[in-house]
Amino acid sequence: MKIGIIGSGQLGWMMMLESYNLPVDFYMLDNEPGPASYMARKFFTPDKYKEFVDSCDYITYEFEHVDGRTLEYSEKSNKLRPGLKAIEIKRDRSLEKDFLRSINVPEADYEKADNFNEALKIARDKGNAVIKTCAGGYDGKGQFYVHDSDTSKFEGLDVLGRFIVEDFINYESEASIIAVRSESGEFQFFDPSFNYNKNGILIYNIAPFNDKKSEMQEIAKKIMNNLNYIGVMGIEFYIVNNKVLVNEIAPRVHNTGHHTLKGSSISQFQEHIRAISNMNIIMPELYKPSGIVNILGRGIDDVYNEIMKTADDVYWYRKPEIRRKRKMGHVNITGESYNDVNKRVNDVLNILYRGNLDQFI
Amino acid sequence: MKIGIIGSGQLGWMMMLESYNLPVDFYMLDNEPGPASYMARKFFTPDKYKEFVDSCDYITYEFEHVDGRTLEYSEKSNKLRPGLKAIEIKRDRSLEKDFLRSINVPEADYEKADNFNEALKIARDKGNAVIKTCAGGYDGKGQFYVHDSDTSKFEGLDVLGRFIVEDFINYESEASIIAVRSESGEFQFFDPSFNYNKNGILIYNIAPFNDKKSEMQEIAKKIMNNLNYIGVMGIEFYIVNNKVLVNEIAPRVHNTGHHTLKGSSISQFQEHIRAISNMNIIMPELYKPSGIVNILGRGIDDVYNEIMKTADDVYWYRKPEIRRKRKMGHVNITGESYNDVNKRVNDVLNILYRGNLDQFI
Repeated sequence: MKIGIIGSGQLGWMMMLESYNLPVDFYMLDNEPGPASYMARKFFTPDKYKEFVDSCDYITYEFEHVDGRTLEYSEKSNKLRPGLKAIEIKRDRSLEKDFLRSINVPEADYEKADNFNEALKIARDKGNAVIKTCAGGYDGKGQFYVHDSDTSKFEGLDVLGRFIVEDFINYESEASIIAVRSESGEFQFFDPSFNYNKNGILIYNIAPFNDKKSEMQEIAKKIMNNLNYIGVMGIEFYIVNNKVLVNEIAPRVHNTGHHTLKGSSISQFQEHIRAISNMNIIMPELYKPSGIVNILGRGIDDVYNEIMKTADDVYWYRKPEIRRKRKMGHVNITGESYNDVNKRVNDVLNILYRGNLDQFI
Repeated sequence: MKIGIIGSGQLGWMMMLESYNLPVDFYMLDNEPGPASYMARKFFTPDKYKEFVDSCDYITYEFEHVDGRTLEYSEKSNKLRPGLKAIEIKRDRSLEKDFLRSINVPEADYEKADNFNEALKIARDKGNAVIKTCAGGYDGKGQFYVHDSDTSKFEGLDVLGRFIVEDFINYESEASIIAVRSESGEFQFFDPSFNYNKNGILIYNIAPFNDKKSEMQEIAKKIMNNLNYIGVMGIEFYIVNNKVLVNEIAPRVHNTGHHTLKGSSISQFQEHIRAISNMNIIMPELYKPSGIVNILGRGIDDVYNEIMKTADDVYWYRKPEIRRKRKMGHVNITGESYNDVNKRVNDVLNILYRGNLDQFI
């Protein structure tokens, strides 16, 4: 069996690491070879998209913003999993918000704006709001926070595009669930995790965080059934006033599921590959409380020994260049309890950032 | 960090699968590219052994019978782990037996013979014995069983080489332990497994099998300390009259440790890579009873779905040709108890061999 992955970054890399044991070969397509491409049996550039799709049994992707022709030809060939519908709503944040509203999934209230000035006006009227660009934007990019109707710091700023303006949610915590749906509509769920984000970037997470597990599972089912979704999806939530609101969905394996690489009976990556290649999906068992710390904007060499002694494992993404905010890798941590993992997460944060996280993100 | 692996078969492949997450690159040397070579960052043939060794920080191997120049140059460069001493005693079965005797490790009694006729004579005198060639021989090859002094079936057979003639051990069970020793002399042990061999080939194993755990650990320590060993070693035992006898040692990751790929906090493969690259080794935790079934002399395609529904995972070694007796892959199985794993092992055996194992080995 041959599986094609669009994109050659860390998510495709971990799909291969976790599934190359199966009788499956991986082909990869990207604009240029990325950190994962050394592991692919064949590498294609987008001009060879037909050959790529024709030579694979199934096609998946590691990122929503990928070559359109490849996606469309894969979909037409009945090989694309998850299907195009899930990507299309991710190309425009207003479509994602509209979709969630249309199926009655709880989310932050929002309005749409055709330009930045209109967005500022809506934000002022709301009082406390977040302006988000409809196209692009991830890891906190393209987001503007307005508090107490004060938009003065954005006056004169000329940001292009269309926008949504969301109510600012003063959440108690952020959490997420990793769910997988098979071709026949069967579901499996990983235990939700608590996520700590800063400047819109995930710093660490810890599972299990099961306060709202059943609500999250029901919402995941609704979303994925409506998209006739095949594969793993990550869904991020705000928890506020004892209720859950969907923040956003990711039609792919997700950074808040990387803890499943250690202390779990199966990782999100192999679960995804099983689902898209029409294998049985299995009920994940979390053997131990488990979490990750992201390695952001720094190298690993100077702390490799110390990290290995403190944590369970390191995933180093082999990106060619270290940049501020950039996810260079992550550290896996398991423990005897949630609090034990939390303590060890802090130990790892101290090793990596020495109390100066802001210098790295 | 760059680690060189001599050999490009399944053991090197699983070392890479289980350790490529670390900030480590793997180079590989073999006579010709094997099933694992697609994953190596660079591949070398033995004529380039100096370049191979010089470009790596550490060198390890997946099999004892490998290019001598490469091993010697690696040893001279202080990069070979485990060191040459462990391989040297494996080049000649009589050296291995003598070594174990010299350090008072319990093993089957034996005598040495300079030719096959002399070996037959010793075997007749012993009554029940096993004649084993000193050089080569694995997976049951090069072994001749003599019962009730009857050597008639071997008369006229002209087998070359020197031999050892061992007392035939009517063992109650076969078991093994996977142990790891660090550069500083620290030890970690995986739980021993029960092994079922037929025609000298491992068919399945199940862990934990802890009846003789502490004796096995002590023996492992003695052997590895005496060899000043760095890395993972597999040690096979016979259990007879409530005592353990060492059958043989394997100075490498071992087929009876493949169950550590599932249901364990760490696999033997990453533990080996940690040890040889001077990282901390960690105490393995067996989350669940766990075992494997070897896929011998057959393909996987016709039973892939059925296996995936019955077992936890499949490792398919990508060997270019299916041959009788050949290890083509293995199936990982975990369960709620030893007996549960045993039951599921039998389910997998039935799927693979339909009651006709002998046709495949």
